[in-house]
Amino acid sequence: MTANQLFEQIKAKRSCLCVGLDPDLDKLPAALDGESNPLFIFNREIIDATADVAVCYKPNTAFYESYGAWGWQQLEMTVGYIKEQYPEIMVIADAKRGDIGNTAGRYAKAFFDNMPCDAVTLAPYMGRDSVAPFLEYEGKWAVILGLTSNASAVDFEMEDELYKKVIRKSMEWGSSDNIMYVAGATRAEMLSGVREICPDHFLLVPGVGAQGGSVEEVMKNGCNSRCGVLINSSRGIIYASRGDDFASAAAAAARTLQGQMEQFFA
Amino acid sequence: MTANQLFEQIKAKRSCLCVGLDPDLDKLPAALDGESNPLFIFNREIIDATADVAVCYKPNTAFYESYGAWGWQQLEMTVGYIKEQYPEIMVIADAKRGDIGNTAGRYAKAFFDNMPCDAVTLAPYMGRDSVAPFLEYEGKWAVILGLTSNASAVDFEMEDELYKKVIRKSMEWGSSDNIMYVAGATRAEMLSGVREICPDHFLLVPGVGAQGGSVEEVMKNGCNSRCGVLINSSRGIIYASRGDDFASAAAAAARTLQGQMEQFFA
Repeated sequence: MTANQLFEQIKAKRSCLCVGLDPDLDKLPAALDGESNPLFIFNREIIDATADVAVCYKPNTAFYESYGAWGWQQLEMTVGYIKEQYPEIMVIADAKRGDIGNTAGRYAKAFFDNMPCDAVTLAPYMGRDSVAPFLEYEGKWAVILGLTSNASAVDFEMEDELYKKVIRKSMEWGSSDNIMYVAGATRAEMLSGVREICPDHFLLVPGVGAQGGSVEEVMKNGCNSRCGVLINSSRGIIYASRGDDFASAAAAAARTLQGQMEQFFA
Repeated sequence: MTANQLFEQIKAKRSCLCVGLDPDLDKLPAALDGESNPLFIFNREIIDATADVAVCYKPNTAFYESYGAWGWQQLEMTVGYIKEQYPEIMVIADAKRGDIGNTAGRYAKAFFDNMPCDAVTLAPYMGRDSVAPFLEYEGKWAVILGLTSNASAVDFEMEDELYKKVIRKSMEWGSSDNIMYVAGATRAEMLSGVREICPDHFLLVPGVGAQGGSVEEVMKNGCNSRCGVLINSSRGIIYASRGDDFASAAAAAARTLQGQMEQFFA
């Protein structure tokens, strides 16, 4: 998927909403009891209910791995379902992988060959080796951790503004057509600083909703001429209701967020 | 597994060898053609051939994930086999995970509850949140990336000696009984600097063999009174022969490395 194709989606839906698909067996509605692939069925219902306002889905691999091979299979089913039913919607595997070159290549194979993901989130600690193999895939994206939304981003990312060094250096490895950056909404005032460093790149912004960030602040500080932000919400959408009306509640929560975005596409 | 139990193994075997289990379908011997779980069968043969000199096995998750749920299942079979047959040998899942707290907890569940791994490698970029959930498990270990063996460690890890800051700060999060550090053998001269910062911690040292580091230099620069190093070899052992004699060739390669270690246990 190209940056322009993504921007076309954003304009058509007047939305830059990314829905985080992080299903937890302990939180699924009773209606799914007895399903043999409950994580997938839950995701499928959420996807069908939100696809009209979502431009991106982001399954976090931890939620699948914690159930072993059975969970991994449901991740594959989920990604396959999205790209079959809604091929225009971007899928980001939120995997935060990072390893030396030949091994990073195996992760690229896992997410780009074995599954049809469009993008993978990557940890930058090990440097260029750990990102380069992902950039060899035409039309695929590396989403590099810049400034994350968690409290302990202060430990290293913000120490001596490491996140700025990471963004500046890694911009040399690719272009705004195959690299994005994670920049957390809980630090919206810092988004404009990130935007100055990389005016053209898309930013994947977690931390809206459950973690406390606001759509308006993110868009004011983060947008560029191609929108340039993907705003993620996970728990606020998928657990909008824990009852059997979870899909319609997710649809309503997604639409509320889209409503907050709409004014920026006037 | 405690640090003392690990040290007992090391003394008994006069070895600090960690064998990297990174199987690649394209490199497996013809004898395994037609096996329904070839990655597992290959690993099992390597494990049985090297268990008398190995104190640790380290499967890298990328090599399993690249085959999807089928690969992940063979990772589970491999870890299960080691802990059933050789419970005294440490298993490190080389996963280099790192995510915000609640998600990091799911990765801990994946490797410590859903699989009986003793340790997981972790990327420190996101700070304490991303490591803390792993330290809540009694007898389990977080192996934090310090200074890795790849060329692009210069990009961020070595810039302003970030790896030293990472080690110093993260030492506050746990103890030498539940935290280890990755320190690459390709930079053996820097191991003594790492050793000064954390005199008591075990170091997991990749990069011997195929990547060019030497056992003797690692042990001279990295050892402490409890040995304190785990030296990993992957390709040099598992692909010592690509023929049907792969297991006996792996045994011989492992014994050669153990022979280089033995003098340090006089």
